[in-house]
Amino acid sequence: MTIAVYPGSFDPIHNGHIDVIRRAARIFDKVIVTIANNEAKSPCFTFAERKELVEKSLEDCPNVEVDTLNGLLIEYVRKREASVIVRGLRAVSDFEYEFQMAMMNRRLNENIETFFLVPSEDHTFISSRLVKEITSLGGNVDSFVPLHVKAKLIEKLLKVKNKTSNTKKG
Amino acid sequence: MTIAVYPGSFDPIHNGHIDVIRRAARIFDKVIVTIANNEAKSPCFTFAERKELVEKSLEDCPNVEVDTLNGLLIEYVRKREASVIVRGLRAVSDFEYEFQMAMMNRRLNENIETFFLVPSEDHTFISSRLVKEITSLGGNVDSFVPLHVKAKLIEKLLKVKNKTSNTKKG
Amino acid sequence: MTIAVYPGSFDPIHNGHIDVIRRAARIFDKVIVTIANNEAKSPCFTFAERKELVEKSLEDCPNVEVDTLNGLLIEYVRKREASVIVRGLRAVSDFEYEFQMAMMNRRLNENIETFFLVPSEDHTFISSRLVKEITSLGGNVDSFVPLHVKAKLIEKLLKVKNKTSNTKKG
Amino acid sequence: MTIAVYPGSFDPIHNGHIDVIRRAARIFDKVIVTIANNEAKSPCFTFAERKELVEKSLEDCPNVEVDTLNGLLIEYVRKREASVIVRGLRAVSDFEYEFQMAMMNRRLNENIETFFLVPSEDHTFISSRLVKEITSLGGNVDSFVPLHVKAKLIEKLLKVKNKTSNTKKG
Amino acid sequence: MTIAVYPGSFDPIHNGHIDVIRRAARIFDKVIVTIANNEAKSPCFTFAERKELVEKSLEDCPNVEVDTLNGLLIEYVRKREASVIVRGLRAVSDFEYEFQMAMMNRRLNENIETFFLVPSEDHTFISSRLVKEITSLGGNVDSFVPLHVKAKLIEKLLKVKNKTSNTKKG
Amino acid sequence: MTIAVYPGSFDPIHNGHIDVIRRAARIFDKVIVTIANNEAKSPCFTFAERKELVEKSLEDCPNVEVDTLNGLLIEYVRKREASVIVRGLRAVSDFEYEFQMAMMNRRLNENIETFFLVPSEDHTFISSRLVKEITSLGGNVDSFVPLHVKAKLIEKLLKVKNKTSNTKKG
Repeated sequence: MTIAVYPGSFDPIHNGHIDVIRRAARIFDKVIVTIANNEAKSPCFTFAERKELVEKSLEDCPNVEVDTLNGLLIEYVRKREASVIVRGLRAVSDFEYEFQMAMMNRRLNENIETFFLVPSEDHTFISSRLVKEITSLGGNVDSFVPLHVKAKLIEKLLKVKNKTSNTKKG
Repeated sequence: MTIAVYPGSFDPIHNGHIDVIRRAARIFDKVIVTIANNEAKSPCFTFAERKELVEKSLEDCPNVEVDTLNGLLIEYVRKREASVIVRGLRAVSDFEYEFQMAMMNRRLNENIETFFLVPSEDHTFISSRLVKEITSLGGNVDSFVPLHVKAKLIEKLLKVKNKTSNTKKG
Repeated sequence: MTIAVYPGSFDPIHNGHIDVIRRAARIFDKVIVTIANNEAKSPCFTFAERKELVEKSLEDCPNVEVDTLNGLLIEYVRKREASVIVRGLRAVSDFEYEFQMAMMNRRLNENIETFFLVPSEDHTFISSRLVKEITSLGGNVDSFVPLHVKAKLIEKLLKVKNKTSNTKKG
Repeated sequence: MTIAVYPGSFDPIHNGHIDVIRRAARIFDKVIVTIANNEAKSPCFTFAERKELVEKSLEDCPNVEVDTLNGLLIEYVRKREASVIVRGLRAVSDFEYEFQMAMMNRRLNENIETFFLVPSEDHTFISSRLVKEITSLGGNVDSFVPLHVKAKLIEKLLKVKNKTSNTKKG
Repeated sequence: MTIAVYPGSFDPIHNGHIDVIRRAARIFDKVIVTIANNEAKSPCFTFAERKELVEKSLEDCPNVEVDTLNGLLIEYVRKREASVIVRGLRAVSDFEYEFQMAMMNRRLNENIETFFLVPSEDHTFISSRLVKEITSLGGNVDSFVPLHVKAKLIEKLLKVKNKTSNTKKG
Repeated sequence: MTIAVYPGSFDPIHNGHIDVIRRAARIFDKVIVTIANNEAKSPCFTFAERKELVEKSLEDCPNVEVDTLNGLLIEYVRKREASVIVRGLRAVSDFEYEFQMAMMNRRLNENIETFFLVPSEDHTFISSRLVKEITSLGGNVDSFVPLHVKAKLIEKLLKVKNKTSNTKKG
């Protein structure tokens, strides 16, 4: 049985992530989506929110599990008895960073391989950062994220905006 | 009549920006330079200062207008009845980011095109960030920005430095 | 009136080319598609064939003209009283070559600008070389070229193949 | 059972190829190394020679099969009931070409995925072209290819050289 | 006598830096390692700590001097009567940034050249950022930094972690 | 005494090459420009012609020697008691190829370093290929090559053209 781990911040999950996960789940016996619980990065969504959005987006995939990453990725992969790390590649800049990480991880554990996968051409230009920016400026992200993620984005980013405005007025 | 929008932070405007704007103004009937009024990015110059520096740098171009960008770029372009977004390309890293933005914007509005333009070879390596860094370290930026921008850079960055020193001493 | 020139080998024209031409034709008053009549490159299709395929693909665009390029591009652009060269950008490798050409052309004539345009995401990975390779190996190129180009590809590449086989047998 | 196909020219196979194949063979149930039998590319080694060198280099891997590719890769993968194409990524230029191929292949068959793998850092800079060039100039390729490939390289490239010299003298 | 300057943050120095410095020291008569004393970047190690780690790592190189950079690099190089800036190149993203800096520096002083050097393939993927991240997550950085740097990394990053935990509990 | 080797085809030498050689000659005690005598590449200029053009372009540089490369570069460098290979870097695509070559050469001889140098921004987009293409199409290459190289380009490329025309007519 081949287990693959797909790590990320998922702040929030978008159609590009979902596409990569579904493709990996067709190839590997099990795909564990691990969400980095990294406070240092000050994410827009709390860890619990991000996890819920990921779970809902993939609830129809029986061989996909959603989990939490607290420590070193390569250590996590070993503990979960996985042999593969899956990463999406969208652009050259992705590639260089991912290449560096893959080399580092191999140095830390020679038995775990990183496999790269290209998302569908419809999703190569989507990023969580852009999705948040467009939402906060009132743009429509219908074709970039599932509807339940869009709803949460609007709730979160407009709430934040209103709070800020109120503070300023006060 | 073809109207083009050239968006940016212009913190501050430099010779590379000016070169791209002048080239675009020779081709399109009107070029609107829109300055992003984005508080989140904590620019070095206030919005009013950035606008004044842009205006003064282009006061001899009758078909260039300087304006403010508050919301979503693609929405602004539509409202201004423009059909073209102009962007300068200096390097591969520019290209990837710009490519992603152009794809996103096209998805948001299929009728607006992004055109890329290469600045003169004398300006390909200039960036607002480097211009500020060199000024604050006492270097000469004569060949990177117009003289009135240089004067403002010195005023702003030395004022900031002196304030900091005073606060520390105090 | 702004006239743009879109140069290429078009051996043969594919949906990526057509997408760029149609987008340019919405912005500029006239787009001249110039086909390089370069014997040195030993194209798969004769010049007459390539011209016919381009013309048929764009017969519904009234402001698109198809013409021949015999000499230096920048000289041709000047003679045709065009002020813009249009080029499609699909990838970083495109970008570097195109950047070099744009700089060279500007040095040869400062008054002519090169504008870059990104084709639709559906077409970023199409190239004439791949279309020919897939056809010659019996693959289906329906989603990469118009039907009349596909027909010509099959005719040309199977004819060549059969001839080669016959020669060998003979 | 997951079957992966690793296609290439292997003219000749080098340590970078072997590293990627061994890594893939640890993850997938079966890896089919398919050698393109493409006369157009005028390889240095005949198809039979290339196949023998690949087979000998991997004779200790029970789940690696060596086969021939005559037609369209994606068609071959389908016929062999494989669901994965494996490709090595060494550099940005690799990435762009491979990205294009992966997108094309997905358009031709949505059910087959391309997975990219990074060879060991010791092998990222090896290419068949360089190995041939160094051998033909008398350099030592001990750390780039297995010994039996080195022997064949010397035999082939010196034979060719001597023949050429003789012809010239004659 | 040719003097070269190798500038950096060295937060902390790693094997990739050391490799580049040793290679440069074999070619140039003197190599001055200048550590940027830049408070703005909020480094993990204090300036004194970074300097000590660099000095200890290179104490066996008689023609390597360790010094402090307070102002503009190009001004420092001139004052030290050096004619060469040495920089390591690991990846395309490095290259673009370094290219821009080299062009800028040449514009500021035409008599000083930037030379780029590739670190050993064992070190191309090491970065100070990754080394800190791995340490703070409990990973082993034995093959990325000298032992005395590793000790300091553990001391510093675990101290910080414990402090943070205590503060939180408190 | 530090000796550097600058290898290339120089078919023909252009201002970008000359700029890199002059910069290297200011830093190293001696720069040997080695011209690859590679028949396989079917150069436009004969070896003797290329050598003469290089020599004339650098006759005012006392510490530059022009020589011939027949075998493996790294072997040549060792025989000439040089410790440095100098290469110009103009673009990302250059970088990747050069990176690969530098790694290969280091593997073949650990004691020889490759140093990369950026040509002046006026020359980053010049290539021998483009210079030949522009000349053969009647364009002016005054700002890309010295006058004596331009004269030889015209003589060679028009002679070739006329011959071809004559042959065809005949």
